[in-house]
Parts: sequence; structure tokens; C-alpha cells
Amino acid sequence: MSAFTDLIQSRRSAMNFVEGVIIPQNELEEMFSYARLAPSAYNLQHTNYKVISNKSLKEEIREAAYGQYKIHTASAVIVVLGDKHAYQQAPEIYGGLKALGAMSQEEYDEQIEMINNAYIDKDAFQRDEAIRNASLSAMHFMLIAKDKGWDTCPMIGFDADAIQSTLNLPDHMVPAMLITIGKDKKHKIRPRGYRKPVNEFVEFI
Amino acid sequence: MSAFTDLIQSRRSAMNFVEGVIIPQNELEEMFSYARLAPSAYNLQHTNYKVISNKSLKEEIREAAYGQYKIHTASAVIVVLGDKHAYQQAPEIYGGLKALGAMSQEEYDEQIEMINNAYIDKDAFQRDEAIRNASLSAMHFMLIAKDKGWDTCPMIGFDADAIQSTLNLPDHMVPAMLITIGKDKKHKIRPRGYRKPVNEFVEFI
Repeated sequence: MSAFTDLIQSRRSAMNFVEGVIIPQNELEEMFSYARLAPSAYNLQHTNYKVISNKSLKEEIREAAYGQYKIHTASAVIVVLGDKHAYQQAPEIYGGLKALGAMSQEEYDEQIEMINNAYIDKDAFQRDEAIRNASLSAMHFMLIAKDKGWDTCPMIGFDADAIQSTLNLPDHMVPAMLITIGKDKKHKIRPRGYRKPVNEFVEFI
Repeated sequence: MSAFTDLIQSRRSAMNFVEGVIIPQNELEEMFSYARLAPSAYNLQHTNYKVISNKSLKEEIREAAYGQYKIHTASAVIVVLGDKHAYQQAPEIYGGLKALGAMSQEEYDEQIEMINNAYIDKDAFQRDEAIRNASLSAMHFMLIAKDKGWDTCPMIGFDADAIQSTLNLPDHMVPAMLITIGKDKKHKIRPRGYRKPVNEFVEFI
């Protein structure tokens, strides 16, 4: 057993939270400074987060999530967004490496062309990528949060259009997930949900 | 700094691998036994893995991934699949809890109905879910692999149809990602790719 396997065994999706716990912004900033180390396709960093602690806005998000009570008691609800247009930031992301001489003009041009070919006019792929990369980042974030003493719950039960309009999001920002965060209100020891044995979901060839 | 923040800082996407390194199946099985602790929507465990060490099949996957060399040198290439029909396994997943008395017949029926309402005839949501949950699981797996001394690289540059036909996969199994795994062949110290500052991708409200 390593510290990490302990961590993943201790991370559980919180069913409810202790009400009234304030989560300090500087702690969240530290967590996100680690979350950004998650991998992303072409290093495009497709993921954006809206951290909502404001009570009335949190209740609006709760409505968009079919009234789920844990959003009410959570210290914050985090809207995890994947940007379908992340590829448009490629010049900014790779420009620094070029300026530093770590990438030649030719390598830079090839990289930008490869990225444009992969994404431009590929709407379905853009959406897949938004969800895929936001999920990689979100998993990182939830483990970091647990490591820092915070409990989370990923949630997919919400009306994406309602979230979009509540937060006035542009269409290219896809709500990939909500994450509630706070201190788990443990009523009783709750058995972990059943997990399939490895041979039911892994095949070795 | 915790052991976990050390781990996420040390995990880097491998650019190439030391050729000829065999990855023991029992080590992979141990990694997957932890990977299955990743959260999934309704605990449906949408993710399936095909771990391909067989050399000729690995080369076929490489072809489907536009010839990317690192698949050739990796100890294995792992095809991460999200199952659009994962909801059909809900009775199996929740049946055990009901049999144990941890869930009443009524709670069980409600749970199954909720899951069916979420997924049946919702093709776009099924696909989103396949990719989302496979990505959560894949991120878990890559961190576990690093913790156990193995390097990985997530890859999205592949022809999904070619992967489907090479592995003879049913349509409901969505190739969400490839992961190459092995021992990183480090030629030189490589700077980590540029990461955006927190205030560029996180908003506190």
C-alpha cells in the first residue's frame, strides 16, 4: 500500500455535506494549481472551472440540477466546462516555447497545422474532446481535493441548457460535469458501491 | 507537498518508451484493481480496457493510430472503451445490494427506473457518458501506473473505426482513448509543457 492507494481508497463520492462550511479561495487556488498538471490533448487545456460559492447562484445551479439537495449543503458547486474551441488557443500555448527557442518556427507551424486539421469544422470531435479532457482534469481535481481534506461528488444529472443560460455561457463551452465540494456529512459507515472484478472489464491480449 | 502532489508532478506523458520491456500481467491486474475505484455515473462502471501486448496486434493498433512510433516501443497499448450500453448492467450492479438487504425492493426499482430514464434512447448522452466515465477511469489508471513505476501517454490521435474493426468491437463500445504504457525513454530533461495560470481557467463566483 502506498500513500496514493490509500488516497484513492479513501476518496468516496459524498452523498451529503456539512452545511455552512466555507471553503477558502486560496485553498481552491492551490488545488487548481495542481489540477492544471493533468494531461490534455495537444496540451490545449480544454478545461474551465466556475466555482460557485455565492448562495443564490448556487441555488440556481441546484434548480438546473433537478433540485439535488447536496448542492444546497456543499461549500461550493463547481461547473466543469470543456471548451470546444480550445484549439484556437494553440498559438498562445505554443508561442512561448517558440519565443524561448525550445521550438523552431517549422516545428511550431507543423504543430499548429496538426491541431487545426484535428479540430476545425469537426464539431463531434470538438465535443468529445471537450468532455474527455474536462473529465481527465476533473478526476485530477477530485483526488487533489481529497488529498487536501475536502470531499467531492461528481454529478451528471443536470440540464445543460439551464446551466448554460444561468451562467450565460457561450455555446462552445460544454458543461461536462458538476462537482460538489465540502465536508462529507457521514451519518453512518456506508459500504462502497459494488465494483466489478478486474476480469469483467479488462481483457489481456 | 504531499506524496500525492509529488506523484502528479512526476507524472508526465511519455514521448517514447524503452523498447523490449515486458509488463507483467499481475502488475497490470493490481493497477486495474485500484482503477476500478474511480467514480462513475450511477456506479455503472462504463469503462472497459483491452490491454494489448501481443506484438502483431500492437502493430495493427499502431496503424490505426497513424503509425505513431511510441506504440511500437511501448510495453503495451491499452484501448480504453466506454460502453454506451452500461445502463443495461444496472440490475446486475444493484442486485447484490438488494440481495444483501442494503437496498429495499422499492429503492432498487427507483434506481433502475432513474437509470433507464437517463439512458434509454438517448444516444448522444450515451456517447457523452461513455467518453466521460472512460476518461475519469483512465486518469485514475495513469496515476496508479505512475505510482507503481510505469509511464504512460494518453492518445487521441487514432481512427476509431479502424480500432473498432481491428478488435471486432460492437458499436456500443466507444474507443475513448489509447494509453501507451512502458518505461519512459528519457533522452534529455524535457521542460513540462506550458500551463495556463489558474486565473485563466478558473472563475470564483
